[in-house]
Amino acid sequence: MTYCVGLLLDAGMVLLSDTRTNAGIDNISTYRKMFLFEEPGERVIAILTAGSLSSTQTTIARLEEDIEHPDSESIMSAPTMLQVAEMVGTVLAEVTRSISGKLGDKAASARASMIVAGQRQGGAARMFLVYPEGNYIEATRDTPFLQIGEHKYGKPILDRVVTPETSLGDGQKAALLSMDSTLRSNLSVGMPLDLAVIEAGTQRVSRQRRIEAEDEVFQAMSVAWSKALRDAFVEIEI
Amino acid sequence: MTYCVGLLLDAGMVLLSDTRTNAGIDNISTYRKMFLFEEPGERVIAILTAGSLSSTQTTIARLEEDIEHPDSESIMSAPTMLQVAEMVGTVLAEVTRSISGKLGDKAASARASMIVAGQRQGGAARMFLVYPEGNYIEATRDTPFLQIGEHKYGKPILDRVVTPETSLGDGQKAALLSMDSTLRSNLSVGMPLDLAVIEAGTQRVSRQRRIEAEDEVFQAMSVAWSKALRDAFVEIEI
Repeated sequence: MTYCVGLLLDAGMVLLSDTRTNAGIDNISTYRKMFLFEEPGERVIAILTAGSLSSTQTTIARLEEDIEHPDSESIMSAPTMLQVAEMVGTVLAEVTRSISGKLGDKAASARASMIVAGQRQGGAARMFLVYPEGNYIEATRDTPFLQIGEHKYGKPILDRVVTPETSLGDGQKAALLSMDSTLRSNLSVGMPLDLAVIEAGTQRVSRQRRIEAEDEVFQAMSVAWSKALRDAFVEIEI
Repeated sequence: MTYCVGLLLDAGMVLLSDTRTNAGIDNISTYRKMFLFEEPGERVIAILTAGSLSSTQTTIARLEEDIEHPDSESIMSAPTMLQVAEMVGTVLAEVTRSISGKLGDKAASARASMIVAGQRQGGAARMFLVYPEGNYIEATRDTPFLQIGEHKYGKPILDRVVTPETSLGDGQKAALLSMDSTLRSNLSVGMPLDLAVIEAGTQRVSRQRRIEAEDEVFQAMSVAWSKALRDAFVEIEI
């Protein structure tokens, strides 16, 4: 399983993903699920992936191949972020169909989805959730975050604190607490985590960090949040 | 959809269910999902239901019929709570099979599950989650709560605060906050709520309450919890 979340804030974008991949619960590995593409000042794109590792790796590999061939249209040359989402959707759908075709009655296990977030110079920061069939939805001011994978455990905190006006600092905190709730409740979502921040209007990755299991800051936050929740619980009257 | 939760504490049992039933999102009704059976001092049983209304209503109706016929074995005459769970499972599986048979390729929509909780004089308080196939699992000291229906949004708070030593008062609070998170994140879970408390060793329903949408105590708790979460969020440092 997987948990990835992206926040589309006025101040920029916050992206967070776990790294646990499992083929059965007895076969657990660590794979990066966050892919960053950057031409600093010109364009920055982040892709987060959930679902079949076979489908997501092949999709990312094809998108990278297109970038490397200067003659090809690619996500780094597409004129708008909408067309970037369209392009990712087209490749993802093709790959999913192709792999599904090989899997017979296990075709559903080839499904994968992606969060595509980015900004090009002169354009707005935009964020899309791309489905296995290639269609997509976009984050808006009403719903300024998108989630893929095991999204339910981490949604209540986002519903409560995230608005477009949330700062990038608070956005990182909200994303990490949302991840913390998910890690606690679903073993198939696991550390380390990949965190990235893209400040609006800069077209570059402002901050990028891998958070390991033994990360003291993250552990302290997790402990403080548990304590704060328990304290809040004690104070509530019914 | 539905959310029902049962807590098995040293001090007794707390049971909470919503009442929203929908056949499509444009056909929403209120149905009780909590059924209490009581011979005060002798035996008390609570059944919470999730899934196909057709399957759960028929199952409950059959269990009630058996109680009314003094010659039949029934959940009120079964010698142990384990046999009560077995009996509920047998009827639920029969009903689910029968309704599935009428539904053709929609057979899966006949699925339903139940929480069966209770105590008989001389026995321990026990709580079971009964699956559509009739098999079941039991709450233990390691995992002193069971959930059916839309369980994910409300699980993090339970994971954090509920232990066997939790008091009945705190147990009610935890169940209500767990429901509150679910109500916020999933529209198909809805008020009013049914709350019941069974004090250990009394074999009777100690407290029973329907909580309406306009209930001021529940609303105040919900507001206070949101505020407490936001305050805790502000205080956390990363």
